Amino acid sequence: MLFCAKKCWLPFLSDESPKTTSPVDTARAELTQMGVNAALKVEEKMGDGYAIEKNGDGYVIRGGEKGILYGAYRLLQKMYLGQDACCEETQPAYQLRMLNHWDNMNGQIERGYAGHSFFFKDSRFCWDENRIRFYGRMLASVGINAVTLNNVNVHYPADRLCTEELLPEVKKIADVLRAYGIRLIISVDYALPVTLGLETADPLDERVQAFWNKQVDLIYSYVPDLCGFLVKADSEFRPGPYMYKRNHAEGANLLARALKPHNGVLIWRCFVYNCRQNWRDHSIDRPKAAYENYAYLDGKFDDNVILQVKNGPYDFQVREPVSPLLFAMPGTCKAIEYQLAQEYTGQQIDLYYMAEVWHEVMDVLEDMPPHIAAVTNLGDDENWTGHTLAQANLYAYGEMAWLGRAFDGTKVLKDWIGLTFGQDFEEKDRLEKMMLSSRGIYEKYTANLGLGWMVTPHSHYGPDAEGYEYDLWGTYHRANREAVGIDRSDKGTGYAQQYPEKLAKLYNDPATCPEKMLLFFHRMRYDYVMQDGRTLLQRLYDDHFEGLAGAEKLLEDWQAMEGKLPQAEWEYGLDRFRRQVENARNWCDRMNTYFHRFTLIPDEKGRTIYD
Amino acid sequence: MLFCAKKCWLPFLSDESPKTTSPVDTARAELTQMGVNAALKVEEKMGDGYAIEKNGDGYVIRGGEKGILYGAYRLLQKMYLGQDACCEETQPAYQLRMLNHWDNMNGQIERGYAGHSFFFKDSRFCWDENRIRFYGRMLASVGINAVTLNNVNVHYPADRLCTEELLPEVKKIADVLRAYGIRLIISVDYALPVTLGLETADPLDERVQAFWNKQVDLIYSYVPDLCGFLVKADSEFRPGPYMYKRNHAEGANLLARALKPHNGVLIWRCFVYNCRQNWRDHSIDRPKAAYENYAYLDGKFDDNVILQVKNGPYDFQVREPVSPLLFAMPGTCKAIEYQLAQEYTGQQIDLYYMAEVWHEVMDVLEDMPPHIAAVTNLGDDENWTGHTLAQANLYAYGEMAWLGRAFDGTKVLKDWIGLTFGQDFEEKDRLEKMMLSSRGIYEKYTANLGLGWMVTPHSHYGPDAEGYEYDLWGTYHRANREAVGIDRSDKGTGYAQQYPEKLAKLYNDPATCPEKMLLFFHRMRYDYVMQDGRTLLQRLYDDHFEGLAGAEKLLEDWQAMEGKLPQAEWEYGLDRFRRQVENARNWCDRMNTYFHRFTLIPDEKGRTIYD
Repeated sequence: MLFCAKKCWLPFLSDESPKTTSPVDTARAELTQMGVNAALKVEEKMGDGYAIEKNGDGYVIRGGEKGILYGAYRLLQKMYLGQDACCEETQPAYQLRMLNHWDNMNGQIERGYAGHSFFFKDSRFCWDENRIRFYGRMLASVGINAVTLNNVNVHYPADRLCTEELLPEVKKIADVLRAYGIRLIISVDYALPVTLGLETADPLDERVQAFWNKQVDLIYSYVPDLCGFLVKADSEFRPGPYMYKRNHAEGANLLARALKPHNGVLIWRCFVYNCRQNWRDHSIDRPKAAYENYAYLDGKFDDNVILQVKNGPYDFQVREPVSPLLFAMPGTCKAIEYQLAQEYTGQQIDLYYMAEVWHEVMDVLEDMPPHIAAVTNLGDDENWTGHTLAQANLYAYGEMAWLGRAFDGTKVLKDWIGLTFGQDFEEKDRLEKMMLSSRGIYEKYTANLGLGWMVTPHSHYGPDAEGYEYDLWGTYHRANREAVGIDRSDKGTGYAQQYPEKLAKLYNDPATCPEKMLLFFHRMRYDYVMQDGRTLLQRLYDDHFEGLAGAEKLLEDWQAMEGKLPQAEWEYGLDRFRRQVENARNWCDRMNTYFHRFTLIPDEKGRTIYD
Repeated sequence: MLFCAKKCWLPFLSDESPKTTSPVDTARAELTQMGVNAALKVEEKMGDGYAIEKNGDGYVIRGGEKGILYGAYRLLQKMYLGQDACCEETQPAYQLRMLNHWDNMNGQIERGYAGHSFFFKDSRFCWDENRIRFYGRMLASVGINAVTLNNVNVHYPADRLCTEELLPEVKKIADVLRAYGIRLIISVDYALPVTLGLETADPLDERVQAFWNKQVDLIYSYVPDLCGFLVKADSEFRPGPYMYKRNHAEGANLLARALKPHNGVLIWRCFVYNCRQNWRDHSIDRPKAAYENYAYLDGKFDDNVILQVKNGPYDFQVREPVSPLLFAMPGTCKAIEYQLAQEYTGQQIDLYYMAEVWHEVMDVLEDMPPHIAAVTNLGDDENWTGHTLAQANLYAYGEMAWLGRAFDGTKVLKDWIGLTFGQDFEEKDRLEKMMLSSRGIYEKYTANLGLGWMVTPHSHYGPDAEGYEYDLWGTYHRANREAVGIDRSDKGTGYAQQYPEKLAKLYNDPATCPEKMLLFFHRMRYDYVMQDGRTLLQRLYDDHFEGLAGAEKLLEDWQAMEGKLPQAEWEYGLDRFRRQVENARNWCDRMNTYFHRFTLIPDEKGRTIYD
């Protein structure tokens, strides 16, 4: 049994990473260490793509510089899995396949659930080269080619990452990650010109333009292959162009033009909304915000601007429709952003395999954007991700970013289980079922029928039905004694009308709206009769009870695996599953009591709902 | 106009405190500085008491050592107020008149709303002698004779205050405060024996007894007049005798016996309850806890033990009945504990003059205990109390602790206004009305009809109707679509039966229970008809609207005082009153919406209740 949490899905790799400097070197070193005979043929025009052919006892890998490396890791994984490694030329579905770390330089990770940063500590760079190299191997093994090390909320001293003060340190880490085909992105503070002495950061001010041109030239003198900048502007108290009455095209193009001569890209997050909303005011509807702030600017962004749009219109809730902005702006380059960090999805305590979410997006969104990003779930915990099983989300994300519509979350999961736990792992079918059921279970106890935001404020773990109900963040459900949910149809806030016609029509009518999003799009009475004849209220009760039962089943399944996994690993997992059941019980009981207090209608099946 | 926030009600005193060492010295120095001719006649048997007589152009003050000092401050205040200073012998109503600081040694004050500690900073003593002397003058001027410098939640390094490590520092501050008749109390950690190397802190273990005997001998070698110890045991995660299956008499007597040879007292807080209660469990009722933990132990405590009992059974809520424990245990010495720090009562932002609360307790409780304590509202803010007007609570507390049943909150307030703002202050009547109305106003918008705990969790400022509803702290109201409140009658939890018969009967019946405590003692339907014919629901609405209007009136009154106060002081106050109105508006709107969502019954007067 080769399972070792810290080596993730690469148990066969050596503990010590070869100290290589380029992707091709790395490929060669990894293959040599594993005793695999493979000729490497670099064909630059293949870019990130590769092909693998059999050649006598060995193999030939053809590909661009990075493609060679991806091919090498594929070969090693397929061999370990006992699968045929050969393949025709394969090219990735997305060009930039990014990870965003939300690491602060004090070492804390915003919304991190796997320990502290492995890049920063005590306001400085602090990293173990061997760990960073292993991180590079993990990412390259699933084709991720760009990472942002620092949090999009940029504060001192992280705002100095793109200045002379910290660039020598940035260069060092860029030099290590280059060997794994990974380019760096820096999260920058839009107000940096002001911080460093200018009186304005107005994007139309020539002094500001000159500032950024000079700053970017400096950056590229240290890191000539920097991918670019990532910016969160005018969002949740971060500075931005709105402060100067400029729109976001004007704001983004400023930085894009400074990056352009170096082939850098400017990645601009579209997470812009009024985060000081008055709960009394029903005229504002937060999910409409991204579309309202950006859609009218289509065609106004420079060609090296990438708008990074969250998959849903809110903020990584368990169940959201696809962001309407992803259907809009055909003349603008976009990236879709997911969150592997399980902020609202169980915090790497509760099991939550994410492939289902990505399939749902691809089912609805015909034109996927050319780039993809995910907020990482990694930290300095020995197993990288807190819950060992959460490693699967990073693995599957990389596979999905490569395969696009060819991605199959079940097949990828089978591979991950085989790589992680070994081909002889007796419980692979059970574990696969657990993971494939996990999102549905979590959804049932936390956010059924599209209800979101019923979480503990700030921490976002555990239930609090009214925790955000009277707050300033625009996140309301307005439950009362008769009904719950927000009417986002054409009779309500009109959010549904931000979609293309066919979807707009589908979502607009409770009769056709997918039930899993019913309370996202509609305000419904508790006595509304669902498709299967149950009332909405009974469905709320049933889902919560079923979610709890599902969590209990996961625990039972894990308990049944005792002896089939290294004992320490099994006990570590056991603690997580026990916490998940406790969490699910809190959700089930509190949510049911919450709706029962409004209705005083008992559960039809006579189960206990506390007063 | 002599008003100066930092000199409180003693504007006539010099900025520099005379460096005296005994109460009589202090009395003499203060009188001399003010040019008052008074002979001081120490009569030890008078103790804390004093008498003042006219003697030609001057006065004679007779009294015990401390009495002389109290007499001197009284004389100076009366002269400043232009009132007759002479009085027959007066003795205080309470023997120990204590202030409890909840200061942590890192400088933060738990539940402090006036800046940081003026005793501690960065885990060490850090104080300005002149400030501490002025603090001594303030306290002595209203007769307070004992203070606890450190928080009852004792953590490292505060647990070392009674060890060789910090006793030299404790001695220095005791030496300063002795000149003001103030004795020190140390908050101690019950587990100190374990911290310092014993394997147990079991009160019946001889090694533990020997430990404390030795420790106390050491302490008194530094501070021979130490008043004693204050202990929070088995409360909110603090260690205590329950850890060793000993009751609280056994636990307290351990320390009392060590203190006895030095004439020290052991003050034992009765704030003991299950703070990990399951909200699903209706069989536990937190207000019953103090009585249940202590009443059966009457007569078991040594005679130098003082049980310190909070005024109400919960925790300093705006409206609580008097703690039933204060009616019980006739054979046990007690102190009543109030909270000047406005944790639940506006945090020294919202105006809240407390005299009314104390009158209500005295109206109900026939036998007042011999000692009294209050959690202080002081910090290192320039005006000592955050809101300048919050100084009145400390002043009135001292007066009340001296006068007992003779205390008149209105008369004392008039004196405080005269002393603080000067006799020529044009707006004294307006200010008096504002302050006398303040508690009623605050109660109406935050906690009408005895509803408590609808506050923002942790911070305890601002509304959150269900903030503690599903938590572990035992603080529930269980509102649903029909009713709100906990039935604490003999048909409910039986809490009302902890009172003497007459009160038990009064509280047991909704028809006789004072309406201001109706929802504390009873669970009532929204359509219950109150004494004046209004429904309970309409009364909830009305009170919230009236509370908001009251806060707005306070702001208007303050605005009308512009020019009648030093501008900076007025502006400072203006900011507080504006924040109070904002807070009141949040309370009013959120609470009304909360009950409206349960009932969907509109306000009879057609005022806006948000959906």
